[in-house]
Amino acid sequence: MHGGDVYRNKVHTDFSVNVNPLGIPEQVREALTDAVSRVQTYPDVKCEELRGKLAKQYGLGTENVLCGNGASELISAVCSWKKPKKALLLAPGFSGYARALRAQGCRITHFYLRKDEEFALSEGMTDKLLDAIKSGAYDLFFLANPANPTGKLTELETMRMLAKTCKEAGTVLVVDECFMELTAEPENYSMTKDVSEYGNVLVLRAFTKTFAIPGIRLGYLLCGDKEIAGKIAMQLPEWNVSVLAQAAGMASMEQEGYLSASKVFVKTQRDYLEKGLRNLGAKVIQSDANFILFLWKDEALYGQLLERGFLIRDCSDYEGLGKGYYRIAVKNRMENEMLLQAMEAILENQKKDTRQRDKRE
Amino acid sequence: MHGGDVYRNKVHTDFSVNVNPLGIPEQVREALTDAVSRVQTYPDVKCEELRGKLAKQYGLGTENVLCGNGASELISAVCSWKKPKKALLLAPGFSGYARALRAQGCRITHFYLRKDEEFALSEGMTDKLLDAIKSGAYDLFFLANPANPTGKLTELETMRMLAKTCKEAGTVLVVDECFMELTAEPENYSMTKDVSEYGNVLVLRAFTKTFAIPGIRLGYLLCGDKEIAGKIAMQLPEWNVSVLAQAAGMASMEQEGYLSASKVFVKTQRDYLEKGLRNLGAKVIQSDANFILFLWKDEALYGQLLERGFLIRDCSDYEGLGKGYYRIAVKNRMENEMLLQAMEAILENQKKDTRQRDKRE
Repeated sequence: MHGGDVYRNKVHTDFSVNVNPLGIPEQVREALTDAVSRVQTYPDVKCEELRGKLAKQYGLGTENVLCGNGASELISAVCSWKKPKKALLLAPGFSGYARALRAQGCRITHFYLRKDEEFALSEGMTDKLLDAIKSGAYDLFFLANPANPTGKLTELETMRMLAKTCKEAGTVLVVDECFMELTAEPENYSMTKDVSEYGNVLVLRAFTKTFAIPGIRLGYLLCGDKEIAGKIAMQLPEWNVSVLAQAAGMASMEQEGYLSASKVFVKTQRDYLEKGLRNLGAKVIQSDANFILFLWKDEALYGQLLERGFLIRDCSDYEGLGKGYYRIAVKNRMENEMLLQAMEAILENQKKDTRQRDKRE
Repeated sequence: MHGGDVYRNKVHTDFSVNVNPLGIPEQVREALTDAVSRVQTYPDVKCEELRGKLAKQYGLGTENVLCGNGASELISAVCSWKKPKKALLLAPGFSGYARALRAQGCRITHFYLRKDEEFALSEGMTDKLLDAIKSGAYDLFFLANPANPTGKLTELETMRMLAKTCKEAGTVLVVDECFMELTAEPENYSMTKDVSEYGNVLVLRAFTKTFAIPGIRLGYLLCGDKEIAGKIAMQLPEWNVSVLAQAAGMASMEQEGYLSASKVFVKTQRDYLEKGLRNLGAKVIQSDANFILFLWKDEALYGQLLERGFLIRDCSDYEGLGKGYYRIAVKNRMENEMLLQAMEAILENQKKDTRQRDKRE
């Protein structure tokens, strides 16, 4: 199950997918329209221009950068390269890792985070996690930073401890930073600067979320070890990044002003939404990202909101969560307000129903 | 090595990639431009509308149709699902199969076709091939119809014998029909109608070549066995077919007039090119497709034509071919004429050089 299924639901506003609320930058849209005139040509099979530009941004060689048809293709390629026997995942977490691992017949161990710690990687949980890694049982460990569905960031110091311990244990650590660029201070949390030091660390990022172009599919993977990068590249189909995706990627990398504005916008609107949700009685998990996980007293919220045209993510199917957990994206002020109003109306209706029932009794 | 590298060569006319010489249909271009406005939405993760339309066309269920980010992604997915220990390939043949098989650590046996039979699947070679399959050694067998790089069709009767023998031997047969729709009578050669009968036969097709949209990436796989189709689907990354590719696919399926015109156009221009090449002294391998393989007396043709702005496919790196083999796409009359004139000029220059050398001596 995923968010974003506007194809089999009647949806007015989609809060189930976590893309930049500012929408696609105008120059990226123009680059896409322009690229339509070049679809009669094969894409560059080496995706050299875009990989080169990314490599320069991160101070790496072009060989250290792989581009994929969405981050999901790169997750599959890593699993297909590593052919892990046993992998470690945090719970709750993004279901895409488990799907790609299972396609390789890999056994999965879930490391359950604590509800009373808001599913954060606290000091205590980190110690336990390090012990689990030290067992040497795991070939692969996927960790999202910020986490999905909680939106919580893990401190860089913790990340480095994990990377070091993984290295010693022979575990490849994939740090999924697909939502990092929409947090307030990516530079203070990202492992992109550390990939050269830890050859076993792969950092995954996506243009999809940051630039609101999920329909295009474009992600990339940074890998400090060129040999490993080459082996993962062999798992990718040829011409995997379309002419349009390459064009969108190039244009996106010029959007510094848009990125700064996005961070401020996301924070302001997240604060607004969190406050609004709390006022309605939701238990909100404090988020650092462009989406919010919350616990609602009622298990029917998904359907009730869908009736009103709002699609949200019912998170009851997440390993380690349960009924009553929902995730919403941070959208623009008007949309956020409309969602809160719809939730308020649902509560009002319930109160009315209760009063009428009480009267009848 | 592949054709189409216009990114690292200075190319005026690209004869190295085999796409429809009529170019992208206007409605497909419009559908793409229109779809740019929908890239802020995730593509349908199930690609249901397009798969349904394809299923209807081929009289299959939606579950029997898989869509991919180009045929190359589906080739990888088949290999990733089957995890073959040993696979059979015809030589000469498309290098993409070997690449995807090697990524799975598969051993490859090449079945070499005969130069004196123009690398066709003659009766004699078919008997030998059937014997090879009967050994039961092969998990997977890729066969392109029409073949690449020769453009030769294999008779449907032969295809059915191969399918039956593969079934008995426990071999999965992938029939790559990526160029089928640009031959004169696809309905008399295609195995698309047979996939329901042979559960072990997968038929691969591509919008890329037929509708001249290689920059978009869109292929599909027909599979008679729904269970197998489901397992291959598990190997594909989620959201693998972009919003634009799905839109292009839907629009392409309405282009019946364009397809009929393409077949006639390809045949006329192929005849023209074959005659022209023979007049210049090339040994032409008779083709049924939208490209032509020929043997040239000189091993420098690739570079000589590139100097003049024409990119062709040097086929010396094909398993089972050798130096002097080149492949060109069938393009429009003016382009074909320009290529033949350039080749004539190269021959004239060589004659002049020889005369001058003779004079000096």
